[in-house]
Amino acid sequence: MEPQREQISADELRDAWPVLSVQDRVDGFKSVPHTIADDFFLSLNAKEQSDLILSLQPGERRTWVRLLAPDDAVDVIQETAVEQRDELLKEMDDATRREVLALLAYAEDDAGGLMNPRFARVRPDMTVDEAISYLRRQTREKVETVYYAYVLDNEQRLLGVVSLRQLFQAAGNRRIREVMSTDLVTAPENMDQEALSRLFSEHGLMAIPVVDPQGKMKGIVTVDDIVDVVQEEATEDIQKVGGMEALEAPYFEISFPRMVKKRAGWLTVLFLGEMLTASAMAYFEHEIARAVVLTLFIPLIISSGGNSGSQASTLVIRALALGEVRLKDWWRVVRREFASGLALGCILGVIGLVRILIWERVFHTYGEHAVKIGVTVALSLVGVVLWGTLSGSMLPFLLRKLGADPASASAPFVATLVDVSGLVIYFTVASAVLTGTLL
Amino acid sequence: MEPQREQISADELRDAWPVLSVQDRVDGFKSVPHTIADDFFLSLNAKEQSDLILSLQPGERRTWVRLLAPDDAVDVIQETAVEQRDELLKEMDDATRREVLALLAYAEDDAGGLMNPRFARVRPDMTVDEAISYLRRQTREKVETVYYAYVLDNEQRLLGVVSLRQLFQAAGNRRIREVMSTDLVTAPENMDQEALSRLFSEHGLMAIPVVDPQGKMKGIVTVDDIVDVVQEEATEDIQKVGGMEALEAPYFEISFPRMVKKRAGWLTVLFLGEMLTASAMAYFEHEIARAVVLTLFIPLIISSGGNSGSQASTLVIRALALGEVRLKDWWRVVRREFASGLALGCILGVIGLVRILIWERVFHTYGEHAVKIGVTVALSLVGVVLWGTLSGSMLPFLLRKLGADPASASAPFVATLVDVSGLVIYFTVASAVLTGTLL
Repeated sequence: MEPQREQISADELRDAWPVLSVQDRVDGFKSVPHTIADDFFLSLNAKEQSDLILSLQPGERRTWVRLLAPDDAVDVIQETAVEQRDELLKEMDDATRREVLALLAYAEDDAGGLMNPRFARVRPDMTVDEAISYLRRQTREKVETVYYAYVLDNEQRLLGVVSLRQLFQAAGNRRIREVMSTDLVTAPENMDQEALSRLFSEHGLMAIPVVDPQGKMKGIVTVDDIVDVVQEEATEDIQKVGGMEALEAPYFEISFPRMVKKRAGWLTVLFLGEMLTASAMAYFEHEIARAVVLTLFIPLIISSGGNSGSQASTLVIRALALGEVRLKDWWRVVRREFASGLALGCILGVIGLVRILIWERVFHTYGEHAVKIGVTVALSLVGVVLWGTLSGSMLPFLLRKLGADPASASAPFVATLVDVSGLVIYFTVASAVLTGTLL
Repeated sequence: MEPQREQISADELRDAWPVLSVQDRVDGFKSVPHTIADDFFLSLNAKEQSDLILSLQPGERRTWVRLLAPDDAVDVIQETAVEQRDELLKEMDDATRREVLALLAYAEDDAGGLMNPRFARVRPDMTVDEAISYLRRQTREKVETVYYAYVLDNEQRLLGVVSLRQLFQAAGNRRIREVMSTDLVTAPENMDQEALSRLFSEHGLMAIPVVDPQGKMKGIVTVDDIVDVVQEEATEDIQKVGGMEALEAPYFEISFPRMVKKRAGWLTVLFLGEMLTASAMAYFEHEIARAVVLTLFIPLIISSGGNSGSQASTLVIRALALGEVRLKDWWRVVRREFASGLALGCILGVIGLVRILIWERVFHTYGEHAVKIGVTVALSLVGVVLWGTLSGSMLPFLLRKLGADPASASAPFVATLVDVSGLVIYFTVASAVLTGTLL
């Protein structure tokens, strides 16, 4: 500990980490007591680990690179600029480097990209006692977990699994073949991480083996990696629902120009879409000039359509992401949302009508045609809310059907879509109700 | 298997479960082969388990109730109507019933409500070999996991932890005291599940012990329960961001009236708020009547404020939920969002100005004052987007400061807030720019 430095604990250092300079990070890291330095290092995320290792002198890097399990090492490599990756790879031992290079070939978001190729394995003809002492030896080789041991034949094909609990409970002289479970949940190498996380939560498992099309076991994914996946997927979805590209980095870590770019893209698209409202309004300019009173309710009506649409799209986006609703359920959703939209539209329509009648009675705001104006607003609300709800709930299905991410059917996107059509609905209803009086 | 029933696999049954009638569920469940019936039952969620058990004959219930670990039994009880809970509790053995009743006293969303009171324990003065054989015996008592064994003194105070990996690697005659880790991550009983899930992902742990203020260990929470917590919290946040109360049930399982109620509540609040736009518009009715052309851009301008506000609030809501941003960071966020809002406003302002000038050149839409109208729209966009971004980013902080959920600063809520102020900004700018010409 340097004398001029205030003594700070490892927890405080961890908390302050994101805002420290490179030099402060290196100094701080070196001040962490040796006994907990490993834990401290492993608590950093892959990007932080990559930055830290590269800020250390070349001679000091090896310890930390070698502390990483192959799947975590892959994450670190992926967070490292391409031209610096070799500096990390050369610090690994040959076996790990081969594993890491093999894993890098998988897509980052697939089961193959998340798995650890080191797992505890036993043979079907071992006895329980032999298996326990064999596992005891394997713990020295840094397998991801010894809690599950996978039973493989000579061709590395997965036959079954035994948990330590099962081994501990079984008589020592029984064969693994007799005590293993063969009712296995496995994942193919190219399974998407979102589907994989559903598999974990449906079956409540701690680990899932990854197998290739020939049934050979390639690695395991453990549930602790899935917590991060679930958080990451939820963050992406929430940001998309909020109407922007997913940031893919913590708020304070992303650079200002990149953040503005990610937000400006969608905002501009929405703005261009919303320009159609100016065209729609121009189309009805004649009606507007004759009945300025109609303009007073434009924001109210179009925003109600947008709000109900964003509710519906958010509901469906999340239900699709969780697997509660599937593509083939679209017709059931249409029926349910038709009823919801009608109910919600009627509620808002009645409130709107009552509001206009009260204001007219108290302030005489809307003149002799107040009742007809009220009816126009109420009917438009029913139509706009129904339309918003239906289009909001169908858009995520359409996007998934087209192979896009349903979460892109964001609240602002649906609102923009509904704004334009909402104006058309409003002025059409107005023409029908008010022609001959106001129009 | 009944002859008239098509043979369906357990997986198909699991998939169809949510849409089956009570009788079909019972029949289907009885048709599941005995060897996998346990796994099938455990793959159901707590509500489904509760419904299924109660649909069975009283004599058939015990097996299934007793299959549940105490923490899972608590979840099932919580999903059961109060008047039917005794029917389940009476099927438990006395020890489990006591544990379940104790756990029911904790809030469902706290560490205490998630923990399992059964965990593997060892004494500090045991040898490694003694501990392994002691753990081997404990597996018969359905402890949650034997992967970590907790080292407790005579008063049940937590001294340290040993993993099976550590036990397997250590020499058999060493004392637990010498091999255990004492650098422990623990959670208090009343820690909120969101904070708890952050603890898991920061430290990458498989299990965290829960201790009371005296340091006595009460139970463990395992990471597989945290996956569900993370999904649930993300679903709540996404639904709130989409502008509704959290549903707290899968889309097809919630009853229609309850769903409409959850959506109508917020929608009505937003509608009442949006009524202020009608008042604001009425206030500017004089300007509108003189310059109808101004109304054409109202939806465009207020929706741009709403969209930028919803981006900013969504970003901050998620960053707060993940702990990337804390309450005390609010001033850093203000500065960053001020710059973002200004940049985004200028981008949209320029696009808006160019659009108006092109339309005027091509279609002669806006008459002799087109340039001034364009300037009005552009300046208003800068003001509205800046204001939307700032208020959208500050609202979640304000809500958290007041003890409310930041996620309630939903996209539609921010949009409604910004709509009203957006109108005021627009007409104020219009008065300044256009008085003497159009106004």
